[in-house]
Parts: sequence; structure tokens; C-alpha cells
Amino acid sequence: MLSLRHLARPSSCSRRWAHNIPSFSHLNAVNEQDIAHFSNILAPSSILSTLPSVATPADDLAPYNLDWMGKYHGQANSVLRPRTTEQVSEIVKYCAHRRIGIVPQGGNTGLVGGGISLQKEIVLSLGAMNNVRSFDPVSGILVADAGCILQSLSDYIAPHNHIMPLDLGAKGSCQIGGNISTNAGGLRLLRYGSLHGTVLGLEVVLPDGTILDQLSTLRKDNTGYDLKQLFIGGEGTLGIVTGVSILVPPAPQATNNIFLALPRFDNVLPLFQIVKRQLGEIMSAFEYIDRTAYDMGLKHGLGPLLDAEEVGDSECFILVETSGGNNDHDLEKLNHLLEHLLAADQPLINTGTLSQSPSQFNSIWAMREGLTECCQKEGKPYKYDVSVPLADFQKVVDAVRERMISKGLYGDHAISKVMGYGHVGDGNTILPTSEGRSTYPFVGNLHLNVIAKHGYRPELEAALEPFIYEVVGEYLVSPKALGMDVDDMDPASHKGSVSAEHGIGSMKTHALHYSKSDVSIEWMRKVKQVFDPLNIMNPGKVLP
Amino acid sequence: MLSLRHLARPSSCSRRWAHNIPSFSHLNAVNEQDIAHFSNILAPSSILSTLPSVATPADDLAPYNLDWMGKYHGQANSVLRPRTTEQVSEIVKYCAHRRIGIVPQGGNTGLVGGGISLQKEIVLSLGAMNNVRSFDPVSGILVADAGCILQSLSDYIAPHNHIMPLDLGAKGSCQIGGNISTNAGGLRLLRYGSLHGTVLGLEVVLPDGTILDQLSTLRKDNTGYDLKQLFIGGEGTLGIVTGVSILVPPAPQATNNIFLALPRFDNVLPLFQIVKRQLGEIMSAFEYIDRTAYDMGLKHGLGPLLDAEEVGDSECFILVETSGGNNDHDLEKLNHLLEHLLAADQPLINTGTLSQSPSQFNSIWAMREGLTECCQKEGKPYKYDVSVPLADFQKVVDAVRERMISKGLYGDHAISKVMGYGHVGDGNTILPTSEGRSTYPFVGNLHLNVIAKHGYRPELEAALEPFIYEVVGEYLVSPKALGMDVDDMDPASHKGSVSAEHGIGSMKTHALHYSKSDVSIEWMRKVKQVFDPLNIMNPGKVLP
Repeated sequence: MLSLRHLARPSSCSRRWAHNIPSFSHLNAVNEQDIAHFSNILAPSSILSTLPSVATPADDLAPYNLDWMGKYHGQANSVLRPRTTEQVSEIVKYCAHRRIGIVPQGGNTGLVGGGISLQKEIVLSLGAMNNVRSFDPVSGILVADAGCILQSLSDYIAPHNHIMPLDLGAKGSCQIGGNISTNAGGLRLLRYGSLHGTVLGLEVVLPDGTILDQLSTLRKDNTGYDLKQLFIGGEGTLGIVTGVSILVPPAPQATNNIFLALPRFDNVLPLFQIVKRQLGEIMSAFEYIDRTAYDMGLKHGLGPLLDAEEVGDSECFILVETSGGNNDHDLEKLNHLLEHLLAADQPLINTGTLSQSPSQFNSIWAMREGLTECCQKEGKPYKYDVSVPLADFQKVVDAVRERMISKGLYGDHAISKVMGYGHVGDGNTILPTSEGRSTYPFVGNLHLNVIAKHGYRPELEAALEPFIYEVVGEYLVSPKALGMDVDDMDPASHKGSVSAEHGIGSMKTHALHYSKSDVSIEWMRKVKQVFDPLNIMNPGKVLP
Repeated sequence: MLSLRHLARPSSCSRRWAHNIPSFSHLNAVNEQDIAHFSNILAPSSILSTLPSVATPADDLAPYNLDWMGKYHGQANSVLRPRTTEQVSEIVKYCAHRRIGIVPQGGNTGLVGGGISLQKEIVLSLGAMNNVRSFDPVSGILVADAGCILQSLSDYIAPHNHIMPLDLGAKGSCQIGGNISTNAGGLRLLRYGSLHGTVLGLEVVLPDGTILDQLSTLRKDNTGYDLKQLFIGGEGTLGIVTGVSILVPPAPQATNNIFLALPRFDNVLPLFQIVKRQLGEIMSAFEYIDRTAYDMGLKHGLGPLLDAEEVGDSECFILVETSGGNNDHDLEKLNHLLEHLLAADQPLINTGTLSQSPSQFNSIWAMREGLTECCQKEGKPYKYDVSVPLADFQKVVDAVRERMISKGLYGDHAISKVMGYGHVGDGNTILPTSEGRSTYPFVGNLHLNVIAKHGYRPELEAALEPFIYEVVGEYLVSPKALGMDVDDMDPASHKGSVSAEHGIGSMKTHALHYSKSDVSIEWMRKVKQVFDPLNIMNPGKVLP
């Protein structure tokens, strides 16, 4: 399905992040007078600046000017750390008056450069706004400052037998406001749905400094437009989320997981269908790990979860989690599933394991959750987050590896590993416009990781982009690449996503058009213009 | 908790729907030339008009000019029934050019006059756009025209073992586009969440005629602002939804329900907490019916579900539904629950029944779903849909009844019944701003029905409104009315909802301020202004 022409195609577009910083001639840099004004609003300890009057050592600003991957280097000379919504409002009002760009920043764990100052915009860190405002264990409604760290919120509600509706590898650093601003997906989306459903209300400081209080704690409220939805996934370009009201589910009374080794990649989809049917409402995760990623995990001390001999030459691995109300019932369903899988004439799995204790349960999850950190240990990862047909997950990974080989860039001197892992369970299907005319390919969310052993280098990025977007774009834009016989389909309505989870940030503004029609982008611009006519709020992000 | 001053308070506001039609001096009425133009776009059978060139009998327009309750009398002289999105676009472009107001209309089952022409706006009925575009049983993604009737879609996907994520009493008439435009809640919200989570994409004709194609079939797509959310609950004031992509869940392999009689209203909340804990993820509905509503149901042939002697003087009734993957497991949980309830020293229930067959299952649901129709048989119902603390459901109903008695308007000559039923399971809590300072009242969604035996009359409405909004508003606006000792709370952030499900339409524009702050309303206006600067799209609805 992936033809050679993909590999041979010349790059039609060479715009990349580093070369594509927009002109911010409408904005002013922060100066001494501005700092003097901010010191009327904030305590001295809440202002970091390399300007002489404050003279914060540059090293102290580094955590705000460099994302955790070490990929995006910010340019801010000043960072503000307000403690209250009113302080945020005062800061924004002043910045609007003075035409100073603002970059709202949470835990700085984003993967697309959305929280980094591109020129001299000031960084407004939410990290000092980190109080829980209220929690009600009867209804499960949590109200918190935007700067609360996801793990801290989990810890706060755990004694009340509730869990956060989202979970990500970055949970120890990422903040709930950032999660919402980037519409984070993560490991629990399959079970608890997206933040568009679980967020009940937001408090937002708009780009003119107005505080928009939609911090509703009502699960149902049909009174007018649901404006808060615009800020979920708005990446801080329409306003700064300062407070959050979110519905958190009761902790499941029983959780279990299994880890399976599959002889062939092609077994993933049939396995998914069987598991979905047999486990039904208790299936809470279905995660994919390819062989390269698994072996990397083993090397860095994750596992071993399975007997090496039984794993043999398995091509990939699947983690299934269940969350239910009755452990006996859930184990009965899981055991029945495993028996069914192993008793088949042509088993879909080589081997598998069912966790027997909390520590085994955690070990199985560690294999999946630890991969991101392992990538960091291997070098500098280029991270892509795309929707492609499940059947072609491996072909995309292979195509990227072959591309690097053909450029002489594969090996310990350059790109040392290309691997894939991701979420199958919350996948979906690209559909044709008229019924019964497609092969209905099942699309999964692939996290494609390309490890640069000795660090990011322009020639590596030039070899990867836009190549990857074009390979993926073929699937997304052209139904024919999907093997569909659909001459009269409207391609615009069948675009997939060049960013299923990570957002657009500054990295993918030039790739937005792969996923959104011109009309959609035009109306996004109009909405941006209404909320931020001065273009001071996270300028240069999301919209190209 | 409900003081006498509520009852004695004079009406501070006498605006009502009938007296509150906004001036539409910016709009033109439809004339013969307009009809001639529309006949270039549509087939003759798709144009209904009382103007001479078409001369449709007024009776044929009646279904479009009168809502199903017979409460709102529309003024349209013409109705268009396009068959394609392109036709909708052409119509809207022309209406924008000619400054003709447009009322998008689905199944006309709304309860707040949102689909009715207030002056001479043209009605654009979506009813002729009723094709399923595609359905994929693997991923559960359904793409359909907006005019598809909810029941038809249920029937379409049933053979593929899927169900719609929403279910309402009006399912035989209401259309999916109308469901989305009003953000319909209904009977499955507890389990499957709101349409903000299940709708994956929309096709919308904007007020300038542009077709905004966001008909994504991707479950995850973080590429820019999620504009479609504005049209979910936008009540057709920002554009016309013409196509829908929605995630539909697999049909549960087992469904069961129980029906319980409670001696006292105060038992509802403790019962809810026990049921929620014991049934966990399989609980899919928890519905409340008061004694007046139950007796009305019996009178009209619903039930009897329970032995009259065992029911005794029970004050209210609860329907619990479960949906799960294994019938044996689910029945074990339900039987355990019933044993637990009946074995208590002071049982929370007088009696109860567990359905033993599909027909018993349907009979139990019929008691709840049939109430709306019973109200119609009893007279003309004034219908309110409010969020109030669960503990005060009955006090609100009683206060309204006493109000009508005190006005001499209670009895067969005027208001014959005041009753309540509704959704407890998807309730929520009004929280204070600072932790640990409230009684955390649990708020439910009460459908308050006031039956005018001989039809709607101005003096009845004058006695009911704004009285009801003020009674409800006390709970919503003032934490003190909730018994909270919270002097420094910001009331704006604790407003409840004067419309949990039904929307604003034309009925509640003057009550919007009970639920939304001035800032929120101002920003709604700005969003309306961007999308519909000419104010032709469903004018006079939602915004006061």
C-alpha cells in the first residue's frame, strides 16, 4: 500500500520550525519600565528577568526557555509567576496596553513547542497557582487552579476513591491547565472520553484581561453557547486558563491488565475485535508497542514481562487493561479471554501474562509508560503523533527507517532507532461519503519516535520533514491511497490528523492544512481575531 | 429551606415570551420574488408558501408553525424543505443577500420555542435530508444527514449491535440535527456522556452560506480550535447543522432494570449513593418520578408495576437501569443490591421489582418515558427544566402548587396538577470557592410539569413566571439559600441552570442571566456577531 514513490518524492516544502518564525513586528519586547509595572502587581519572588533591575541568572530562566525534550529554545528575557487570577488579569491588561506578547506556560511538557517564547514574548507560568479549590466526593466534581500538577490532583482525590479522567506519562510535571489547553488524550481516553466531555467549566483570562468565569460545576447546563470548549485545545492562543472544574470518575474497584506478544503485526486488529467483544465495558486500555520499542524497554530495565523464548520473534506487543466493579467478575472475563486466545487453531498470540499482584500490574504499565523516558536515554527523539490505518503502522515506521538508510543517516552516527507505539483502543475509521464503498480501514493513533543519538541536527530534520507528513498525508488526504474505490469522494472530509494528541504548537503550524480545510482555517482565524485582535496571546502558535 | 418570602415576593419582572418578541426591523418578509428565486434552487414540492404563486393551504403549514405542545404559534408564510447541503447553502446565501430571517427546524419537538418563526422568518426544515451517509460497525462511527429521525438511526444500527448514545421520549419525531443543535441530554447521558463528547464532526452551513465541513470521523484530532462545539447547543443561531458524524456505542449484551417505591423523598440521595457504589460501571440510568406523576401514569394505563398495597403511601419512585457485558454478572450485582436494600434495619424502599423479561423491562421504561404523553392527555403542560438541590425537588413542586392555590388557580378550572420527574443520576453539586465550607448540596435535573387543564392562558403564565425562575434562582444565585456559610463566595460562579436540557429558545432569553454572567453573555454576543453579523440566523433565540 505504501509505494516507492513516497520514498523518492522530492520535498515540495522546506519550511520548518527553525526557519518559520513569524514576524512579530506588532509586538514590543519587555523593558525595565514594564518590569517596574509588574512589580506593582506581583511579589519580587514572582518575577524572573535577565534585565538589569532584576538580574535573574540566565540559568534560572532556562527551565522556562527550554522544553523538556531540549528541542525548542525559547527567547523570553522575563518570566512572571502570578498566584491569583486577578494578578493574571492585571498582567494581561497591561500587556494588551503595551503590546507585549504572552506565552502561557504550564509544566512545559508539550511536544510541539506550544509553550515556548518564539521571540521576546513574556512567559506567564501558571505553576504558582496550584491550589485545589474544592472537591466533592458525592458528585465527583473537582475545582482546581490551572497550575495544579496532574499527579498532585490524582493524589488529592485518591483517598476519596476517585481518579483523574486522564493519565499521561508526563503526569508528574504536566499541569491540569496545560492538559486542558492542549486537550491532552493519554491512557484513559478509551474509557472516560475526551476533556470536551469531562471538563464542566473553566475560568479564563481573555486577551484583554477580562476574567471569563464559566467555572460551572453543573454537569448539564444548556444555556447558550458552550464557549469554554474553544479553550479546550486552544493552546493558550485565545486566553489563559486559570481555573478548572472537572468531573472525576470513581476509582474502579478492580483493575487488572494483561500483556501479550503477537507473532505478526497483522494480528492486532483481529485481536482488538475479540478483546472488545469479550471485555465490553470493562476494557479501559488497549496499547500497542512494536518490537524495537519493547527491546529498548528491556535494555533500560523495563520488564522482562515475558519469557524470552516464548516471545521468540514476536513482531509486536499489546497491553490490555480492565477497570470494573467486581474483581471476581473481571478475572472470570479475562481468564475466559486468555483461554479463548490460546485454544485457537491459529493463535493470535505467542504468549501472554495476566498480572497477579499490584506490583505486577505496575510492572506491566511501566513497560508502556516508561518508553518515553527510554527514548530520552537513547538520544534526542523526534516525536510524531499521527493517525494512520492500523494495518500500516509498521509500514510507516519501516518507510521512515528506509528513508534514513537511503540518506546515509541511519546508524549510531545519526538516527539510531525508529520505533512506534500508541493507542489502538481509541482508534477510528476513515469513512467514505457513500455507503458500502470502502474497505473501512481502522485508523490508530501512532506515536512515531525517531532517535537522534547525538542530538537534533538540521540535516536530520530536513530528511524527516515534510517527508513524514507527506507519507501520512497520503493516507489522510487521498482515499485512493487507502485502497478505496471512491472517485467521487470529497477528500476534504476525509482528512486524518497530523496531530491526534500533541496539538499544533509552533512545530506543526505549516502542517495544519493537512488536517483542516481552508474554510476551517479561515474561521479559526476569525475566532482568533475576535478574542485576540491584538494578537498578543501565544502568537505564532496554532495558526500558520 | 424554602422560606415564605419566596411565595410572597412580588413579580419584579413581567416579561414573557408573548410580550417579548424582539423587533426585527432589519429583516425583510418573504415575497413573491423570493419564492420565484427559491424555485430555481428547489423542486416545487420542496416549497410551501401561503403566498399566491404557491398558495399552499394554511393547514399544510400548520405543522411547521405550531410546536408539538401547541404553545408557540409561528408566523412563517413559507417553508423550504431542501434535500442537499448545497441547496441549504444556496438558500442561505440568498437570504443573507435579501436580509430574510431563517429558522432552522428539525422535528419541532423542542420545549422552548426555539424552532418557531417569531415574525415572518422563513422556516428551513431539515426533514427531507434524511439519509444515512455511512456506518462502520468496527469503530461505531455513524455519518448521517441532520434530518434523520433519532428512532430511524437507532433502527438502522440495531442489526449491527450498536445503539445511539442518546435516547429521549421524542425519539420517534426528533431529528439528530435538532438533538445536536439543542445539545439534547435524555436518558443515556449518565452512561455515554454528552454530545460534546460523542459528536466527532459536523457539517454546517454558516449564515453567509459557506459550508463548514468539519465532518471528521476521527475520534482524536488536536489540530486547531474545535469549532464544531459552538454549534452543539447553538440552537441554530450560528449556522445550520446539515450533517453529523457521531460515535455510537456497542449495544450492551445485557440490560436490566428495577423499579423501587420509596416511603420518603429524603431516601433518594442515600439510595443513589448505595446504588452507585454497588453497580458501578453498569449503572446506566437513575430516574426519579414523584407520586403525582406515578398516579397519573397509572390512570393512563402505564403499569401497574408494583402491588398497590406494598406501595402504600410511598412518596416517590426510582427507576434504575443497568447495561453490561455479562447478564449473569449483572443479575448477581442487582440481586445483591436488592437483598442489601431489603435487609436493612430501616429499609430505604417500601417495595421494588426486578424485570424478568424483555416485556417487563419495557413496561418499567414505559412508566418513565410515557409521562410526557400523559401530561399532554391531562391538558396543556407548562414545562420547566431546572437544576435544584435534590433535597428540595419536592419543596419546589410544593411551592408552585401552593402558589397556584393562593392565587385561586389550582383545580380543574385552571392548574389541575403540578408534578416532578427527572434525572438524578447525572446530577451534580454546587460547590463553594474555598474548600470545606459548604454542605455540598447534591443538585438534580428536575422536569417540573404544571398542567393547565383547559389550555394555556396568560394569567396562568403570569402566575408561574417569573415566580419559578425566582424560586429556582434563589438556589442558583445565592449560596445562602443553600444553607452555606460562605460570605465571601462569588455568586456568579455558583449559578445553576434555568435550563439543564431544554435550551433557551425564545422562551427563556429573558432568564439567561439567571445562569450566565454578564461577561459570558457579552462574549456570546461577540461570537454571534462573528458568525452572523446580519442577524438572520434564528433571530430572537438564545440571546436576549
